[in-house]
Amino acid sequence: VIPAAGLGMRLAASSDRDPEPKALRLLEGRSLLARSAAVLAPLVEHVVVAAPGDRLDQVRRQLWDLAAPFVVVPGGRTRQASVGRALDAIDPSVELVLVHDAARPLVPRVLVERVIAALDDGSSAVVPGLAVADSLREETEVGSRPLDRSRVRAVQTPQGFRLEVLREAHRRADTFEATDDASLVELLGTVVTLVPGDPLAFKITRPLDLLLAETLLAGR
Amino acid sequence: VIPAAGLGMRLAASSDRDPEPKALRLLEGRSLLARSAAVLAPLVEHVVVAAPGDRLDQVRRQLWDLAAPFVVVPGGRTRQASVGRALDAIDPSVELVLVHDAARPLVPRVLVERVIAALDDGSSAVVPGLAVADSLREETEVGSRPLDRSRVRAVQTPQGFRLEVLREAHRRADTFEATDDASLVELLGTVVTLVPGDPLAFKITRPLDLLLAETLLAGR
Repeated sequence: VIPAAGLGMRLAASSDRDPEPKALRLLEGRSLLARSAAVLAPLVEHVVVAAPGDRLDQVRRQLWDLAAPFVVVPGGRTRQASVGRALDAIDPSVELVLVHDAARPLVPRVLVERVIAALDDGSSAVVPGLAVADSLREETEVGSRPLDRSRVRAVQTPQGFRLEVLREAHRRADTFEATDDASLVELLGTVVTLVPGDPLAFKITRPLDLLLAETLLAGR
Repeated sequence: VIPAAGLGMRLAASSDRDPEPKALRLLEGRSLLARSAAVLAPLVEHVVVAAPGDRLDQVRRQLWDLAAPFVVVPGGRTRQASVGRALDAIDPSVELVLVHDAARPLVPRVLVERVIAALDDGSSAVVPGLAVADSLREETEVGSRPLDRSRVRAVQTPQGFRLEVLREAHRRADTFEATDDASLVELLGTVVTLVPGDPLAFKITRPLDLLLAETLLAGR
């Protein structure tokens, strides 16, 4: 599942009030979405993309050479709603699902395989986590407090789930909005397994991130 | 104050068991330390660098054209110890001090000015903080729990302090080891002021970060 319906306002030029949806932004001639999907496709049975409602055909064309069958469904108003709609499009006989951000196009295949391996080992929910380089503070009502960085992990994708668990989590979430799917399944009491993340799975959020991705691709 | 005595093992090639100290690594022909010091120098009265004990002369040569008087002192075993030694080298009549990581060579001048402005407004401790792009989890004794990303800030440098406050914090810290100076002064009950950080003040920790910095400099 790739939610790809968001606008990505932090990436757009501040003067651009109607930016291209982030997942459709080009990186060395190919969209972030197409690159992300191409990494996952050889490792899964099929791909479901939640795309901006007015771009479904454009997205289908971008994925024409994908190494797995795919469907493109209209996304929702939020990332979570888009994942929910994509889950509805999956055959209920499927057991395992990966949810991956379109904005992590350089995710290494080995990271995807690590998440799948943890699912195969019996985990119901798997997330890659990476140590954080900066010190961290949490804002509180009276100011801020330091967080113990050694215990904090930046959460990446793909995240892996038993399909029934993730579906149930999305059904129950209703109006509760989480920033990732692991946080949702945790509300059901499901234990989330952390596996090591990878620096190359960084998320393209700001213009600097896009520049880094371009540089890395140019060097390949 | 620039602590610049660390090795930066995460930046070194894994095969390199005796890497160049991180602050002395070159970025487009100039060390991270020299670049960082050059941004701060026009805005301060003098610069104190804590350098690897066996590199003092090398470091002095790198700073020959700095736009402020400077001294180079031997660093300690940890970042905190290095800052402590640098503080000991400051004339007690000085009122305000900035502590800046050598590994943030692209810090924009405007960020340094923002920290100084908050000190001028009366804050005793100022840190720049930037929103985090990834979801975050905190490891716990039984697994992990999600952190509310909207309340978390990645802490950058320069951090600004009243000198007497930071000195007192370092004296009292003794064996307690913090990842930044703001966490230390907080133990004294000092309120830490957060000001907006800047993506360009990113810390060079991994090889990817060095590549990004090279790309940004090449594009200037």
